[in-house]
Amino acid sequence: MEIRHKTHILKITDQKITYDDRCLMSGIDQTPFCYLGHGDADITMYRGNFDIVDDVIERLPLTPIDHEMHETTLTLIMGYQGAPYATCMFELSQNGDLSLRVETTDARWNRLWLRLDAEPDEHVFGCGEQLSYFDLRGHHFPLWTSEPGVGRNKTTLTTFYADSRDHAGGDWWTTNYPEPTFISSKRYLCHADTFVYADFDFRPKGYHELQFWGIPKRIIFRTATSYQELLRKLTDMLGRQQPLPSWTSEGFIAGVQGGSERVDELISRFRRAQVPLAGVWCQDWEGVRITDFGKRLFWNWSANDQLYPELKSKIAAWRREGIRFLGYINPYIAADASQFPQAEQSGFFARRKDGTTYLVDFGGFDCGVIDFTNPAAYDWFKNLIKTNLIDVGLSGWMADFGEYLPTDVVLFDGSNPLERHNEWPALWARCNRDAIHEAGREREIIFFMRAGTSGTQGLCPLLWAGDQSVNWSLDDGLASVIPAALSAGMTGCGLTHSDIGGYTSRYGNIRTRELFMRWAEMAAFTPFMRSHEGNRPDTNFQVYDDPDALNHLARYVHVFRLLASYRTHVMSEAAELGLPAQRALFLHYEDDEITYSLKYEYLLGQDLLIAPVYEQAQTTRRLYLPEDTWVHLWSGARYGGGWHSIEAPLGQIPVFFRASSPFVELFDGLKSAVLD
Amino acid sequence: MEIRHKTHILKITDQKITYDDRCLMSGIDQTPFCYLGHGDADITMYRGNFDIVDDVIERLPLTPIDHEMHETTLTLIMGYQGAPYATCMFELSQNGDLSLRVETTDARWNRLWLRLDAEPDEHVFGCGEQLSYFDLRGHHFPLWTSEPGVGRNKTTLTTFYADSRDHAGGDWWTTNYPEPTFISSKRYLCHADTFVYADFDFRPKGYHELQFWGIPKRIIFRTATSYQELLRKLTDMLGRQQPLPSWTSEGFIAGVQGGSERVDELISRFRRAQVPLAGVWCQDWEGVRITDFGKRLFWNWSANDQLYPELKSKIAAWRREGIRFLGYINPYIAADASQFPQAEQSGFFARRKDGTTYLVDFGGFDCGVIDFTNPAAYDWFKNLIKTNLIDVGLSGWMADFGEYLPTDVVLFDGSNPLERHNEWPALWARCNRDAIHEAGREREIIFFMRAGTSGTQGLCPLLWAGDQSVNWSLDDGLASVIPAALSAGMTGCGLTHSDIGGYTSRYGNIRTRELFMRWAEMAAFTPFMRSHEGNRPDTNFQVYDDPDALNHLARYVHVFRLLASYRTHVMSEAAELGLPAQRALFLHYEDDEITYSLKYEYLLGQDLLIAPVYEQAQTTRRLYLPEDTWVHLWSGARYGGGWHSIEAPLGQIPVFFRASSPFVELFDGLKSAVLD
Repeated sequence: MEIRHKTHILKITDQKITYDDRCLMSGIDQTPFCYLGHGDADITMYRGNFDIVDDVIERLPLTPIDHEMHETTLTLIMGYQGAPYATCMFELSQNGDLSLRVETTDARWNRLWLRLDAEPDEHVFGCGEQLSYFDLRGHHFPLWTSEPGVGRNKTTLTTFYADSRDHAGGDWWTTNYPEPTFISSKRYLCHADTFVYADFDFRPKGYHELQFWGIPKRIIFRTATSYQELLRKLTDMLGRQQPLPSWTSEGFIAGVQGGSERVDELISRFRRAQVPLAGVWCQDWEGVRITDFGKRLFWNWSANDQLYPELKSKIAAWRREGIRFLGYINPYIAADASQFPQAEQSGFFARRKDGTTYLVDFGGFDCGVIDFTNPAAYDWFKNLIKTNLIDVGLSGWMADFGEYLPTDVVLFDGSNPLERHNEWPALWARCNRDAIHEAGREREIIFFMRAGTSGTQGLCPLLWAGDQSVNWSLDDGLASVIPAALSAGMTGCGLTHSDIGGYTSRYGNIRTRELFMRWAEMAAFTPFMRSHEGNRPDTNFQVYDDPDALNHLARYVHVFRLLASYRTHVMSEAAELGLPAQRALFLHYEDDEITYSLKYEYLLGQDLLIAPVYEQAQTTRRLYLPEDTWVHLWSGARYGGGWHSIEAPLGQIPVFFRASSPFVELFDGLKSAVLD
Repeated sequence: MEIRHKTHILKITDQKITYDDRCLMSGIDQTPFCYLGHGDADITMYRGNFDIVDDVIERLPLTPIDHEMHETTLTLIMGYQGAPYATCMFELSQNGDLSLRVETTDARWNRLWLRLDAEPDEHVFGCGEQLSYFDLRGHHFPLWTSEPGVGRNKTTLTTFYADSRDHAGGDWWTTNYPEPTFISSKRYLCHADTFVYADFDFRPKGYHELQFWGIPKRIIFRTATSYQELLRKLTDMLGRQQPLPSWTSEGFIAGVQGGSERVDELISRFRRAQVPLAGVWCQDWEGVRITDFGKRLFWNWSANDQLYPELKSKIAAWRREGIRFLGYINPYIAADASQFPQAEQSGFFARRKDGTTYLVDFGGFDCGVIDFTNPAAYDWFKNLIKTNLIDVGLSGWMADFGEYLPTDVVLFDGSNPLERHNEWPALWARCNRDAIHEAGREREIIFFMRAGTSGTQGLCPLLWAGDQSVNWSLDDGLASVIPAALSAGMTGCGLTHSDIGGYTSRYGNIRTRELFMRWAEMAAFTPFMRSHEGNRPDTNFQVYDDPDALNHLARYVHVFRLLASYRTHVMSEAAELGLPAQRALFLHYEDDEITYSLKYEYLLGQDLLIAPVYEQAQTTRRLYLPEDTWVHLWSGARYGGGWHSIEAPLGQIPVFFRASSPFVELFDGLKSAVLD
């Protein structure tokens, strides 16, 4: 049997279901591809870290017992021991994609497992922002937005202490931004249209098993002959990020705080060191508090008059000096904040079953959760952004969090929080976007988020990679932001960046000068250059205290500025084609099998190859160049394809440009910015 | 419906199955008590530590769709969606016990879950030797014999290092001796007649869920009005340990090594310090090797002539001085041992699928696994014990290991190693027992094992609690051997002991003088007093190097000797009634709810109450006395029931005797042994 639509073909035999010659399911009569189940999960949250244990009470392997065919659809009646339990409807749509809808007859089925045929040497990429692995094959990935964890590796002391003291260690799969979307090296994409808890298991040799705690609306497959086309098709569906406003290319966004006077003093330090500033990012614009974890923000969403008196006119003054002001917000309000009573009286917070406000522990203080399923709450918060952020003159902000929706909360619209938890980052992104849109300032104002989900692609102008530890660990330090950018890119998110120097200083991890400098070198080759003082500013290295590091920073911010026109080109490819700014090498060299295994190198656009030094005290970097002619940025030496060991003293991140790039002249000019 | 046999009644309604008024299953039409499944487990072993991950492909909740009744049996036809899948046959037997047999129609069903009705405040005890919990309620317990792990608590640094460096950290449930047998405070016992992997989950409030990776031959329930009667009934079924030979009461068994000369030197040190010796335990009688872990034994089962020349006559000489000689053996042979080629050529080792000998890594050296399913191999090894141990004059030995049967081994009799793994300790115990029995020496020769399973009760004369860390940790140090003894006791094993001072010195744990002394004080109130030099003798405290500790040991060995007649009485209760020597308090005070929560106190027999000091630098111990008149052993002060804080300086373990005991005079005499 087969169904055709234009060039697309869905074929079904007793043994296989193939779509455009990709085998999706095999041995379907013997090896079921569809399992229905009923489970009862136990979910507890502690400060954004979740313990999730499932009790699968019932699980049925289903096999086709009958089928129906119409013009563009094929429906399999799926049965167990001859009795029907579900239908699997495959439909070839007008745009050539294949969608699979599973329907069950009984509402008790709240678990679904689908097995997709896999080849032993197949690679899989995406699933949102994954920080430990880029090729997802060989591992399974629970998809549930949460704190990413500290250390994120159970064999490290950092994670051991984070787990045993704070229940906060995380693991390879914990991420702020999971998404049930991936691209296979069999040249297809798969996207599940659902926000339920999922777990994608890419360990078995012969199949991928996709687990869902609920029945997805549909599972969408699209094929293409190249990854670039797959990314275009993926972002046609999920949205794309637009190029960042041009002011972001003017220089460094200094993460500073402490009030207007302190910020002015630090601005002059940056200026004296000739660090071009595009803006200052002052997360404490709304006040601070001190907790166990370190210095925290107050979480009342209006300017703090003590720290930043007459902020609106101060922002205008900074603006006249060419410095933008960026702030901070998140979708919670502290219980001791002045905005709390109004929001509570208006019924804008999610509630407990007993009708009282559900307070979430954020680590030393409790907050109400703005209930975005309540249109009035949504509008109130959106207007608060317009009034207290946009009207005051902020050019951007960190839109933090979004991962903490508890699963036992009662929502205004009566929906199941277990099914809304993963969607929350999209609602939060939309609230920010709508505020900016209604103010008519999309081309000027940005916000950046760590939490993400399906739809983030079109809703959030810029990701940031969350709260790395201030160290060299692969799973949670400098290195981890590279696979984070690459996997987000393969999920259709083209623009991301990270806190230069990392954020989390705990359990003996203290940021060093070297770490900051290596991170800054790398950030010059990303879409956005922003630093963070970290959670414990006083005990960690700060660039503004160190003349040599300031000098190094100045040179790399200059590189960043010089790259503006190239970056504009790269970001337009993201906006138009869905090609991420930071790209896996195989997006341009698909036939080179080695490029599939690289997780600590990337292309910025097509023409720059960056291999950051991610280990302490390393001054050479072994790296791979795909077959092409590559020019080493600092020495001008030319290299062909293959493995190379490249000298990379502190201050000289290994970067190469393609000899045949139309930007060769621009690239040639970068050297003097760093070396002269 | 009901079935009666003598005073026993099985009642079945739509809602419940009750046996002697204990509700076993409730709501059976709505809440299934029986689930059938098909799973595919992934099991890997590294040096006796197992990674076990199950993939449950199919799971059906079954409900009764029909029934058949005969004189003593009631058979429920269990179905899913109206179709039959299994029968559950309940039978009241001649001796009044209830057995449940599950039969399935299809061999693919290799998972069974049974839910037993539970009350919220119910307690559960047993499941073999459990070292972290005594009351098992609130936790689940995978039942799979393995290394117990180092630290056994994921929140400790010891376990962190053991896991990350050696894959050997363990957890609360890892034990050498698991058993699918428990006693409920609803006054029934449950024993599953099977050796398959099991996991008993006592977490849910309303039920216990018993998971089996295979269909047990039967599940046996017995009721009684008291725990003492339950233990008698349990040990009627599974066997009982006989009183230890009287020579074991003559004094201390010194764990020493290094060859005859060194042993002689150490014997004189003990003698000079007036430590009464019953024997020396020389684990290195068969040679040594040095590995990463420390000093290890050679694993060739004959006397090592270099270390112990002419051992047989030397043993006879020691015996004339009143000192017995004990050795060591395990059911493996090192690949570089002289006995290996003969065993291999004779086909006595378990094999790989390709027919070659399966070598197991024991930590720095590889061994063949004696295949006890091969009668010729069994006999050969048994005869080796007779010839090389018994005939040489050994009075006992540690029969170590038994937990390492890999699940991918090919056995002589073609049986499934997954179903034999948990049985292996019984085969190993039987081999030792048969050797001793055939030599006609049961009343004189003992062996002690750490590995156990159903049947250990009647096969193994004495347990020891395995390889504790040489520290104060609750899960793996001194404290842990108390719940180990209590839970083994509730599984029908009445005689156990532990390495005085612990064994495992790794990851910075070094045995201190204080630890050894506290452990020795406690050991005087157990059935057997034996020390171990540990895995790294040279860097850990050894009692024979310390005059004060030797003096302390001498006093407590004297106590142990003085207790001989009381211990004989206690051991005869174990042999005749199945009452363990070390007893949970509620065995004699069932109405006192507090006694159910005590895991670091015990009774030795009915009349001595021991509350060991298990924390470092503690000189008082808070302890509970059940309602009775108790006399403090050292001060003579009398106490009633309730919580008390008792002075317990080093050297004065809190011990009380019952004022109404027939052994009062004996107990009164203990004081002078310690204090004078």
